Amino acid sequence: MKRRLLLVSNSTLHGGGYLTTANVKRVLFVPYALHDRDAYTKTARDKFSTLGYELDSVHEAQSPVEAVRRAEAIFIGGGNTFRLLKSLYDNEVLTEIRRRVLEDGVPYMGSSAGTNVATVSISTTNDMPIVYPPAFAAIGLVPFNINPHYVDPDPGSRHMGETREQRITQYHEETDTPCVLGLREGSLLLVEGNTASLLGTTKARLFTRGKPPVEYDPGSDLSCLLTR
Amino acid sequence: MKRRLLLVSNSTLHGGGYLTTANVKRVLFVPYALHDRDAYTKTARDKFSTLGYELDSVHEAQSPVEAVRRAEAIFIGGGNTFRLLKSLYDNEVLTEIRRRVLEDGVPYMGSSAGTNVATVSISTTNDMPIVYPPAFAAIGLVPFNINPHYVDPDPGSRHMGETREQRITQYHEETDTPCVLGLREGSLLLVEGNTASLLGTTKARLFTRGKPPVEYDPGSDLSCLLTR
Repeated sequence: MKRRLLLVSNSTLHGGGYLTTANVKRVLFVPYALHDRDAYTKTARDKFSTLGYELDSVHEAQSPVEAVRRAEAIFIGGGNTFRLLKSLYDNEVLTEIRRRVLEDGVPYMGSSAGTNVATVSISTTNDMPIVYPPAFAAIGLVPFNINPHYVDPDPGSRHMGETREQRITQYHEETDTPCVLGLREGSLLLVEGNTASLLGTTKARLFTRGKPPVEYDPGSDLSCLLTR
Repeated sequence: MKRRLLLVSNSTLHGGGYLTTANVKRVLFVPYALHDRDAYTKTARDKFSTLGYELDSVHEAQSPVEAVRRAEAIFIGGGNTFRLLKSLYDNEVLTEIRRRVLEDGVPYMGSSAGTNVATVSISTTNDMPIVYPPAFAAIGLVPFNINPHYVDPDPGSRHMGETREQRITQYHEETDTPCVLGLREGSLLLVEGNTASLLGTTKARLFTRGKPPVEYDPGSDLSCLLTR
């Protein structure tokens, strides 16, 4: 399998250097997670320009599917995950992105919501369900789920809602996807074919149904996640 | 309109005294928001027993709809809002609860997720979308939305995900429901007919599309929310 993925916890992408190894000159940007797609595209275009890349936005293309077919690399930015997934379905690009990444080896970068939609489903997003997508099933570039912006319980908090870990436990009560990787701020997952590595500056926490959670240091090999 | 609602931010109900004014002896409990409905019912039954009320659970009834038709009062407990709403649809009780509360004046109490489903939609829940309900539209006992467990931004946080206020702003970019009431821990909303009052120990924050948010002290009259 040819896939090359960079899945980032943060809303902003700090992985520009990733593309230098991929012989890419133009990036296709997907701004669907924010309301103001033009402004979002300008911000991303300015950023990628300083790194030496041209940026096209899928929302400026006459045919979004055709834009995906021609893409050298795909970057899906953060925002609201429900809005993003609904727009991927509405514009009928979800299947084509999957095909380009898994079959053609087109590099994929995701930030926050763009990381959520790269997984099996958006069922471990932290976002509010502000719009109703036709399904929670996502692009499925990896066979597990991710919780971006993972936070540990705050023992000093007066908040009486569920902790993030309790929410993920509730997810495990309901579904067949056995693994959820909690990516803290500063963490990112690099996937190349059938290998996966944890990069960045913070540990990640892996939740597997029926087992105690396990902490992984930056640099850890997480390839086992790809074969389950 | 006969409605009598007690909508609580917290996951646990502290409003047992509410029923003493309503000439109620038995309460119909809806445990759908948690996975273990038997254990949840036992906890609620023990609690209500100490307050002098019998408790029936809708999940123990042969016909959930019939149980709703006979209910003297309805209490929907907290947990996961998506699981709760999906079960309300799956068991076909959503419309009947609405009819009993709005037409027959059956008292309704909701905690956390049980507060979310009392509003227009669950689109301002904080919960993870662990199951896919047939819609986000909820029981609609009031014409606005609520965000339970509302939290203010933490200026010391290194978390780079959206703040709760930013998430509600994103909701306002997408939908026609103009008002979202942010209920902090310790807040509850009492609705009697066409009057609504904020009770409890903490302020609430009202988000209206296109306007700055407004803080309300405990004791405030929020009846204006019922007529928009």
